[in-house]
Amino acid sequence: MKQHRGSGLVAGVDVGGTNIEVGLVNADHEVVDRAKASTPTEGPDAVLSTIADLVGSLEHRPAAVGVGIPGVVHDGEVLTVPNLENWHERVAIDDDLGDRLDLPVALGNDVNVGLRGEWRAGAARDVANVLGVWLGTGIGGALILDGAFFSGSRGAAGEIGHVVVREGGALCGCGRRGCVEAYAGRRSMETTAQAMVDAGRETRLFEIRDEVGKTKVTSKVWKKALDSGDDLATSLFDTAVETLGVAIGSTLNLLDLDLVVIGGGLAEKLGGALADRIADAAAPWVLQPNPDREFVVSALGDDAGIVGAADLGRALLAQR
Amino acid sequence: MKQHRGSGLVAGVDVGGTNIEVGLVNADHEVVDRAKASTPTEGPDAVLSTIADLVGSLEHRPAAVGVGIPGVVHDGEVLTVPNLENWHERVAIDDDLGDRLDLPVALGNDVNVGLRGEWRAGAARDVANVLGVWLGTGIGGALILDGAFFSGSRGAAGEIGHVVVREGGALCGCGRRGCVEAYAGRRSMETTAQAMVDAGRETRLFEIRDEVGKTKVTSKVWKKALDSGDDLATSLFDTAVETLGVAIGSTLNLLDLDLVVIGGGLAEKLGGALADRIADAAAPWVLQPNPDREFVVSALGDDAGIVGAADLGRALLAQR
Repeated sequence: MKQHRGSGLVAGVDVGGTNIEVGLVNADHEVVDRAKASTPTEGPDAVLSTIADLVGSLEHRPAAVGVGIPGVVHDGEVLTVPNLENWHERVAIDDDLGDRLDLPVALGNDVNVGLRGEWRAGAARDVANVLGVWLGTGIGGALILDGAFFSGSRGAAGEIGHVVVREGGALCGCGRRGCVEAYAGRRSMETTAQAMVDAGRETRLFEIRDEVGKTKVTSKVWKKALDSGDDLATSLFDTAVETLGVAIGSTLNLLDLDLVVIGGGLAEKLGGALADRIADAAAPWVLQPNPDREFVVSALGDDAGIVGAADLGRALLAQR
Repeated sequence: MKQHRGSGLVAGVDVGGTNIEVGLVNADHEVVDRAKASTPTEGPDAVLSTIADLVGSLEHRPAAVGVGIPGVVHDGEVLTVPNLENWHERVAIDDDLGDRLDLPVALGNDVNVGLRGEWRAGAARDVANVLGVWLGTGIGGALILDGAFFSGSRGAAGEIGHVVVREGGALCGCGRRGCVEAYAGRRSMETTAQAMVDAGRETRLFEIRDEVGKTKVTSKVWKKALDSGDDLATSLFDTAVETLGVAIGSTLNLLDLDLVVIGGGLAEKLGGALADRIADAAAPWVLQPNPDREFVVSALGDDAGIVGAADLGRALLAQR
């Protein structure tokens, strides 16, 4: 790895449940080099070690590193990481990874970091009041309010996945009932589909899953099933969109926002049509319609996390 | 009215559906004189005229006036005022009332203004992230986020009354279904009680209403019915608390706040026990518990609106 301190290059790290992706990002928010590895399942130490190796493999040494991680982040520590295996303790990632790399490290929640990417270089550029809804295994959210990221008292703001839409409704992965994630999170949708198949309903979802060589009903599988007109997939997806409309409508009543950005795998596979459908589903719930309000999908797709994480690293440099 | 410009006295005006209350407030947020009149039903001109008369009747001429009004306020204009009669147009209250009084006039939404009173001199003093939930005929809300009032893109933020808790549930006054206001707003609760009486259920709610000489089931009537152990009143009130818990829980998941302030007539009649019940009802819905989070009732009661409105007027003076 060549030494290029002061090159203006910052590494952005996107830690996902399946893969860790690292990008070297320039001052124009362009990804100029990349590296990727499977997310280790042995816990924090293995994850940090993999991140350090990936950053070390980039063609230039960055001036700083930003990391987006799927958990509650507060003051540089990860408080909870529900989707990573064998990760039970709090870890001060900024210090630990900073020591390994001898670089400044900034840490953020993955969805906050994704929305930051869109805010800097994508669909939310210069918008003052924005909700990001990231559709994946679960549903993550992030908020820009009055032109700044809002993370709440202890870093836990943005959990639109656990806005309740049907009190006493479907069981959610969080143990509560009726959260929008219980209807529109991919893990819940797959569980529901499996239960309906067990009860005798037909669907091609699981055949398609096997055909494309996946172990889960991924966004790609949903896209194929919906395109093929599969009845059960269509019905579950309609419910997902409907409940997202309720949760986002409630959020707009609370926060009167300018823009909703839909991100994550489903947004990437389904594109603008998904944002339009969710906008239509939210409209009836909104008390004060705003003709200037927009619903869009992420413009950077998978790179939103890398670009946003790098920007977080860049912001840390600027503070020094 | 004596002339006391520069006296540090500001008038706070609380426009309600029933009464307009005006207070003369000193720099310590104390109400030193008061005036009150029924809210005219003939529309904006009569309301403004009454406000001007009330302000004129105060023992000193204030240096500025702040007005809290039950509607969506943006840039000094009232966009919609659902609970005042014969008020259909947008009115630039700041300019109009300013001309009548020859004083600077600031305008705010009534619940925002109530929470502002609590923030300056009551239960929310110096707290960074606060939700105000005002229980009245309807349910109003207001937000302090990162130490500043948050009103959204067009002044419509804070509408926790129209957070949906049961998709497809009870009909709300807004025409939608399942909003928390449909279960916990006084007007909805009275409508439901009446429907259940029509269907043969028994309750003393309407007898108590008549005994205390009211035309509506007011907060006082609810208090008496609950104290007497009335079954239907208790059941409707339990549902109100339960749904408030869902809506506030969803809001805490979205916004990770430090404090919830419960205000309005019911809060005044029922006191801290109401805040405790709502806290217990919200707790199961909260994803990230925060041991420092508190639920309290308004400390200023009815005066929150006057004190907050006066503070809005004072803030306008400070900008000049």
